[in-house]
Amino acid sequence: MEAKAPSSTLLALSFLLLFISFLSHSQASHGNHIRKPRPKPCKEMVFYFHDIIYNGRNMKNATSAIVGAPAWGNMTILSGMNHFGDVVVFDDPITLDNNLHSPAVGRAQGIYLYDKKEIFTSWLAFSFVFNSTEHVGTLTFAGADPLMNKTRDVSVVGGTGDFFMARGVATLMTDAFEGEVYFRLRVDIKLYECW
Amino acid sequence: MEAKAPSSTLLALSFLLLFISFLSHSQASHGNHIRKPRPKPCKEMVFYFHDIIYNGRNMKNATSAIVGAPAWGNMTILSGMNHFGDVVVFDDPITLDNNLHSPAVGRAQGIYLYDKKEIFTSWLAFSFVFNSTEHVGTLTFAGADPLMNKTRDVSVVGGTGDFFMARGVATLMTDAFEGEVYFRLRVDIKLYECW
Amino acid sequence: MEAKAPSSTLLALSFLLLFISFLSHSQASHGNHIRKPRPKPCKEMVFYFHDIIYNGRNMKNATSAIVGAPAWGNMTILSGMNHFGDVVVFDDPITLDNNLHSPAVGRAQGIYLYDKKEIFTSWLAFSFVFNSTEHVGTLTFAGADPLMNKTRDVSVVGGTGDFFMARGVATLMTDAFEGEVYFRLRVDIKLYECW
Repeated sequence: MEAKAPSSTLLALSFLLLFISFLSHSQASHGNHIRKPRPKPCKEMVFYFHDIIYNGRNMKNATSAIVGAPAWGNMTILSGMNHFGDVVVFDDPITLDNNLHSPAVGRAQGIYLYDKKEIFTSWLAFSFVFNSTEHVGTLTFAGADPLMNKTRDVSVVGGTGDFFMARGVATLMTDAFEGEVYFRLRVDIKLYECW
Repeated sequence: MEAKAPSSTLLALSFLLLFISFLSHSQASHGNHIRKPRPKPCKEMVFYFHDIIYNGRNMKNATSAIVGAPAWGNMTILSGMNHFGDVVVFDDPITLDNNLHSPAVGRAQGIYLYDKKEIFTSWLAFSFVFNSTEHVGTLTFAGADPLMNKTRDVSVVGGTGDFFMARGVATLMTDAFEGEVYFRLRVDIKLYECW
Repeated sequence: MEAKAPSSTLLALSFLLLFISFLSHSQASHGNHIRKPRPKPCKEMVFYFHDIIYNGRNMKNATSAIVGAPAWGNMTILSGMNHFGDVVVFDDPITLDNNLHSPAVGRAQGIYLYDKKEIFTSWLAFSFVFNSTEHVGTLTFAGADPLMNKTRDVSVVGGTGDFFMARGVATLMTDAFEGEVYFRLRVDIKLYECW
């Protein structure tokens, strides 16, 4: 008889534990080291950014400039051999659609470089700096960008503000390019760690 | 009567579970995808670092140098248009207070670049390399640094040694600058993932 | 007597909780903020990569090129003062053993820079781009590389494809170098976050 009271206490306690354990379990799920099916992103966003490279005649509109080049290159014209060695600094407008003249919701700022002699391929490290009614904060990206592939995945390595501590994967697609002066990238951002 | 013994075993077991669950819960808390109030950092540190840029006359004291510049720039004088396109490599002493001559507890090493024509803004990627009685290890940072803002958040994207696997946010503040040769940044580091 | 049935239910429930808690606990273990003994990696790999720097006479074989240099440097010869300020873009073959002529399992692509006047030390940011029967995907690295140390740890800050969302630490060792044209790094990769 006297066991009865403790038992119902235990029952309540156990449900509490079950609830806490369940919370822990779901929160910790990104640490599951053998999961193969991709988890669902905690946030998905699509943006475009627009790069107009300085070519000696477009100072007013240029959003980027060659700042490093190999021995055979210069800072006004992308070098031969698939631009191998050219380093570009950029401050590109980010838009919600593919129109260069749409209102910018932020700036893509950082560096990219062409890194292969045989084909066009690049490597990027940059941040999205948001300052709109929608988002305030930054996301920082880094990774290889093999331009000839239709889609390329780079890593989202950190975030601040609205994107505090974020991590994820961003898929880049070349949405348009015009000669060697303008290109537009579509970026599908999927965050898998959101705080 | 015979129910008594199992019940006390269960009670003990439940407390054990409660303890384990509590551990799990607190450890997993950074995975909570919808938390809005900022979590408490697992580590906080404040440092200063000091950048003396090479200007053609200060080779002995210089801790950094312009290594990339746009077509209109050079490697001795920061370029016009808010230094847009200038790339700087640095190896700056880190101190615990704002005195350049205090003993260095490590070096800030990496790259920064000015990336906007219209205002001063930069982008950085660098590591703190600690080698003191206090800390041995590295922290690596990346992010946008809009210099005209009083405080700027960049991401702590990784760590080694004492800061194994760390992640967090670092807040940069310009603590002093003298012409275009010296500046001092205060860095408030808050780690939210500590292993 | 009637307490018996609930008790065995509780016993079963408690074991379930114990199991769930154990799962949560092991998955969340990377969030343990005070652990000092290193956790076991979820993945370990060893690779070599091979850098042949352009020196004005080896265009065909070169896998890297100087693309930035300080005022006193140039793009063909690594500069004095421990190459301080030299920036190199690379696209290096990755092999499973220390033989430059072994089949490449991927490319190491990115940037490194020499950042100290007094001794050889560098800073790197690059990706391993795998495209072999074994691995498809990327890992991105960043960190300080004090070349004179036998081993140097840099951070694995992100991954894609087979290495989706990976984080970890990579230990670099200079496996060979020949003058200022060729070097080979051994990279011991230990991932501690695998998805």
